[in-house]
Amino acid sequence: MRQRRVCVVVSARPSYSRVKTALQAMQAHPALELQVVATASALLERYGGVVHMMESEGIPITARAATVVDGHTPTTMATSTGVALLKLVSVLENLEPDVVVTVADRYETLATATAAAYMNIPLAHLQGGELTGSVDEKVRHAVTKLANLHFVSTPRAAQRVLAMGEEPNSVFVTGCPSIDLAAQIKNYATDRRRLLEPYGCPDLRADYVVVLQHPVSTQCEQAQRQMLETLHGVEACGVVAVVFQPNEDAGSESTARAIAAFRAARHGDRFFYVDNMRPMDFLRLLDGSRSLVGNSSVGIRECSYLGVPVVNIGSRQLHRERGANVLDAPHDRAAIAKALGRQIDSGRYARDALYGSGGAGEKIAAILADVSLSIEKSFAD
Amino acid sequence: MRQRRVCVVVSARPSYSRVKTALQAMQAHPALELQVVATASALLERYGGVVHMMESEGIPITARAATVVDGHTPTTMATSTGVALLKLVSVLENLEPDVVVTVADRYETLATATAAAYMNIPLAHLQGGELTGSVDEKVRHAVTKLANLHFVSTPRAAQRVLAMGEEPNSVFVTGCPSIDLAAQIKNYATDRRRLLEPYGCPDLRADYVVVLQHPVSTQCEQAQRQMLETLHGVEACGVVAVVFQPNEDAGSESTARAIAAFRAARHGDRFFYVDNMRPMDFLRLLDGSRSLVGNSSVGIRECSYLGVPVVNIGSRQLHRERGANVLDAPHDRAAIAKALGRQIDSGRYARDALYGSGGAGEKIAAILADVSLSIEKSFAD
Amino acid sequence: MRQRRVCVVVSARPSYSRVKTALQAMQAHPALELQVVATASALLERYGGVVHMMESEGIPITARAATVVDGHTPTTMATSTGVALLKLVSVLENLEPDVVVTVADRYETLATATAAAYMNIPLAHLQGGELTGSVDEKVRHAVTKLANLHFVSTPRAAQRVLAMGEEPNSVFVTGCPSIDLAAQIKNYATDRRRLLEPYGCPDLRADYVVVLQHPVSTQCEQAQRQMLETLHGVEACGVVAVVFQPNEDAGSESTARAIAAFRAARHGDRFFYVDNMRPMDFLRLLDGSRSLVGNSSVGIRECSYLGVPVVNIGSRQLHRERGANVLDAPHDRAAIAKALGRQIDSGRYARDALYGSGGAGEKIAAILADVSLSIEKSFAD
Amino acid sequence: MRQRRVCVVVSARPSYSRVKTALQAMQAHPALELQVVATASALLERYGGVVHMMESEGIPITARAATVVDGHTPTTMATSTGVALLKLVSVLENLEPDVVVTVADRYETLATATAAAYMNIPLAHLQGGELTGSVDEKVRHAVTKLANLHFVSTPRAAQRVLAMGEEPNSVFVTGCPSIDLAAQIKNYATDRRRLLEPYGCPDLRADYVVVLQHPVSTQCEQAQRQMLETLHGVEACGVVAVVFQPNEDAGSESTARAIAAFRAARHGDRFFYVDNMRPMDFLRLLDGSRSLVGNSSVGIRECSYLGVPVVNIGSRQLHRERGANVLDAPHDRAAIAKALGRQIDSGRYARDALYGSGGAGEKIAAILADVSLSIEKSFAD
Repeated sequence: MRQRRVCVVVSARPSYSRVKTALQAMQAHPALELQVVATASALLERYGGVVHMMESEGIPITARAATVVDGHTPTTMATSTGVALLKLVSVLENLEPDVVVTVADRYETLATATAAAYMNIPLAHLQGGELTGSVDEKVRHAVTKLANLHFVSTPRAAQRVLAMGEEPNSVFVTGCPSIDLAAQIKNYATDRRRLLEPYGCPDLRADYVVVLQHPVSTQCEQAQRQMLETLHGVEACGVVAVVFQPNEDAGSESTARAIAAFRAARHGDRFFYVDNMRPMDFLRLLDGSRSLVGNSSVGIRECSYLGVPVVNIGSRQLHRERGANVLDAPHDRAAIAKALGRQIDSGRYARDALYGSGGAGEKIAAILADVSLSIEKSFAD
Repeated sequence: MRQRRVCVVVSARPSYSRVKTALQAMQAHPALELQVVATASALLERYGGVVHMMESEGIPITARAATVVDGHTPTTMATSTGVALLKLVSVLENLEPDVVVTVADRYETLATATAAAYMNIPLAHLQGGELTGSVDEKVRHAVTKLANLHFVSTPRAAQRVLAMGEEPNSVFVTGCPSIDLAAQIKNYATDRRRLLEPYGCPDLRADYVVVLQHPVSTQCEQAQRQMLETLHGVEACGVVAVVFQPNEDAGSESTARAIAAFRAARHGDRFFYVDNMRPMDFLRLLDGSRSLVGNSSVGIRECSYLGVPVVNIGSRQLHRERGANVLDAPHDRAAIAKALGRQIDSGRYARDALYGSGGAGEKIAAILADVSLSIEKSFAD
Repeated sequence: MRQRRVCVVVSARPSYSRVKTALQAMQAHPALELQVVATASALLERYGGVVHMMESEGIPITARAATVVDGHTPTTMATSTGVALLKLVSVLENLEPDVVVTVADRYETLATATAAAYMNIPLAHLQGGELTGSVDEKVRHAVTKLANLHFVSTPRAAQRVLAMGEEPNSVFVTGCPSIDLAAQIKNYATDRRRLLEPYGCPDLRADYVVVLQHPVSTQCEQAQRQMLETLHGVEACGVVAVVFQPNEDAGSESTARAIAAFRAARHGDRFFYVDNMRPMDFLRLLDGSRSLVGNSSVGIRECSYLGVPVVNIGSRQLHRERGANVLDAPHDRAAIAKALGRQIDSGRYARDALYGSGGAGEKIAAILADVSLSIEKSFAD
Repeated sequence: MRQRRVCVVVSARPSYSRVKTALQAMQAHPALELQVVATASALLERYGGVVHMMESEGIPITARAATVVDGHTPTTMATSTGVALLKLVSVLENLEPDVVVTVADRYETLATATAAAYMNIPLAHLQGGELTGSVDEKVRHAVTKLANLHFVSTPRAAQRVLAMGEEPNSVFVTGCPSIDLAAQIKNYATDRRRLLEPYGCPDLRADYVVVLQHPVSTQCEQAQRQMLETLHGVEACGVVAVVFQPNEDAGSESTARAIAAFRAARHGDRFFYVDNMRPMDFLRLLDGSRSLVGNSSVGIRECSYLGVPVVNIGSRQLHRERGANVLDAPHDRAAIAKALGRQIDSGRYARDALYGSGGAGEKIAAILADVSLSIEKSFAD
């Protein structure tokens, strides 16, 4: 019997983390042929050279589609979506997959979903039904309505996907594959002190926090100020901080500018700056930290499983389901410092299986191998 | 006070019909500045020269965007969406509207919605929440999730939009502006006999039916056979028939080929072929007919208001709300002939206000002038 | 040693005819790996289903790129070029050829050349240096300036390519591969009477002429009148005529409309209409005809080799090198009738090797296998 | 009489400098209506915010087209050309100019030329016929073959444009408008010491040189090493140096990386880094310098007029006409240091009018107002 051709579109460092164990499980599955399309910031060196990372981790790239229009403005994001759509149509036109897999809520996700829907290719979507409070959420739900299969992280997300009219037998609560990775790092003896060496940073002996904050694309003109508030808030706590670059998005230049300005103005030896890190190392770094500060969904998702305290800033994760480990703060340095102080004091939280507890990638591969594939669906009133 | 700039994207003959009275009401409204973008098949002569029709009806075109990729295959539809997206981004980049209006469920609708969402421009969608059973329905609901304001036709459609998590104060049951046109033709003394003269057809003295059938893009390889079944079914009834060309869609070449083959093979004087007709004349033609045969939403929508019997064929309108005037038939000539016979015998139905009863265009313009515009929204659980 | 990957972009019926023997020779060459990209009207059924023809003739398609934007206006031609460029970049991004081959002067030719030039892939161009008097000629010469290797048809064309500053060792006078096909049909016993049978046309017993006229894209608003003049001119000669559809170009809808109107208005049994024909059959049809009427380059090129008289109408081939077999006429029915009368009287011309005498395809393949490939070149003052 | 609509596409800092006086002259000309389209890196902050500069200098932007695809690889440059083409088609579709003006040799230049050629809009090209030795030169000459009017800088460039078959009455030796700016700065009393203050640099009291080096897109993998050789070569001379960022091009990230690495590793106070400078200030800075080092065409062009010594490195300006002020060096730090030493010793050169002596902008505007505009042209054998 011919293997089912599953085409997974990977578009960024975080989307790779959220699909990596599923990719590995698909590769290993005898009934599946894996096609991997690398696109968007996955192809850009300054967003972490995701394609090199994938290849070094044994995931070969089947096709590439360079699509990111420079400028990080609302106009360029919309333009990028158009470029991504045209290139992905071309790629799918030539790969002829049986099913396309798209992840989360980025513009490449929507471009992938649009291409598959019009090309009559069944579409599977990972991480539908979650709430994030910006254009990303609009896109996430729009992709749900274009998709035929839904691999969701939580029962609450499944409820929302069903409320939107998706057919019950198309919704699978697999948990999030990103938790599979978090589950794996528990097996490592974390020697956090040497983690930053390959990135040019010295020994991490002190307690430290991790800072990872992305621009909110509907507030992109405030991204610079928002990042500065966070950095000053962390600084006020007097703690060692490892600061990461934001994702590629409208406003990310402003966020990066804030980091550069802060870095240029201060010469404290308590702040370290990392452009990029292998996902497993990043998880180990998080696992060893006193807190994650910023607005990354990693705080909501992996940190809930790991029990790492999180100071979640601003509206980016506003309505997202979260565990007890998350404390919210507004874009205000005093409030951020206060919240961080509380989280450092509170120490480690109990592990929470809210977004899964491992095995999601294998479940997804198994379902994709067995499920009946169709482009038809009915609104389930 | 500066007028609100409302940018309406018109992309095809039917979408013009469904928004025409709204365009007129926006033009007339003192607080609104109307921008009209003509795109997709609205720019193509063989789909009825919609731009000329609009200009002759006093609706000036602000910008154009030629986007239809030839071939009418799933691949070309996806490609067209990409071209439409890139061109509409360029148009919106330069028109800078305060709100964008998009209609129904076509690929240009999705391209418009995607552009607006990423460009942080509030988006209003007409005709959300309806069910149609193909990629169009996926797109319709995806657009709902990208939109900020919803002008829906029926309370049932409103319910679905709300079920999908839209905020109650963003959903307005205005009825469909297409019914406004149907309400207007009631004022004409219909001299149906002369209606076809400008289209090169002779006097319509006999009773007649109207045939309008579009390809279903998820079944586009069957479009030719499906159209032939319909034509043969109508012929079996021995009735005069006025046959229209399908919309531009994946499969429309096959549908057109079926019409051409049928036309070439038969020389009966009971079938007339019309490429295109002014919307008001088309409604008058319908209003004077014994039945509409095919799968156009006009049968569900305007004919319900007019009380014209409809033989609705196949799955295209499967789950759509319909009035008592609609009788379903499969793609089978005998079944079509039988259903058409029953509808001709039944005669006129009572008027049904299911999709509205006039005034929708003015309601939409009034709301767009007054409503608070925002790109933010929350999933209403 | 790794085979050289040669990627040939085939975009239309005529460009396939002009490259077919080269494709066959590349397939057969042990040092070459052939990649064929089908794009533009080669993918459209109504322009002759070139991809099916290629596959049936043993040329497999490596990748496809649907690119033709509908409308046949100057705007849509420019848009198509952009779509072709984006899709061909994606195709080349994934095929990674060592050299790209592009043919003649169409917008896909320019898109191919632009993609290759910026992607640092050496580019070979067929049929540079010829004169045609419209946007096509601009594009032909622009492609020459983007190309690294030039396979030209005539010494005069070579002179022009050199005058434009190309390096002498990059220019090869191979003759045109289309003449290879013309040379092959001489081996057939032409039974022209049965040639039209597969196309639904009856026996061709009488003497006949062939009509093939394309719109001139810089005069596209006159295309309809120009075609009508030709048809009326031919009719005035009282001869049997086989009329072909035009290429896909700005204005081709108008040309087709003229043919349809002429056909609808006349019921003479002396005019036959053919949508499309296999290239070899078309050459045999030409070879058996009394004259070719229109503005196709086939009249200049293959007919010169075959010795078939040609009435060449209008400016499309204005400055093109031609043999004694070509008689010019303006877009005027009386002048066309007069010229056609003279050509019918004159009878067959002597064979002229102006555009080659066979073997061009093999020469091109041999050169591509041996030549040093580079993206660098200097203007040869 | 209606004004002629002249649409000038401005795409980068250098192309603005080369067309600025022409824009001003067109604005002032009573017979011309100026339309300015800002595209490509002109819209990007990190390439100097050209649009803000233009607006502050009284040149309003008529339309915008964001087009730069991120990555600076050959693939992304080709992709950018496709995006530029689609967006410029949309812009021209709506601006409807009588003539389009495009400058020099960038991908946006080719996109503009392609759009105009297919849209039947006459095209004027500035700076045709020059030699630069990379893909840029291919593009420059391809644009010449697509253009209808040629405003060239030197008689030698005119000769080449004519050799390529352009009609003599379409070629105008106006000189380069960039020299108009150089002529204007002679009127300033150059207080070079305060020039760098607005850019955060201290007083420039010492003698200094200016470093400006771009990647060569056909050698983009060597860009980083090439830039480092230059910086080390300059350092070896012990001179104060003002270092500028490269243009946006394939390889420019590597060039920028070299600058950043050099800057991070050295803490000498003799190197100053400037992201961007107003063109007039840049010319004044050059005029006050001991030498320009790098491969910018400014060295060939403006510096020849100013008499500033230039060390021209590598192949980027290989075949370009140059004055006595230019001394070539390979990408080798020792050779660069030696050449720079010689230029510093030689001191100022005599002014050379090779590329013009002022008034070019006004000549161009006057010709555009008077010349007969046509899209037709013939190859002048």
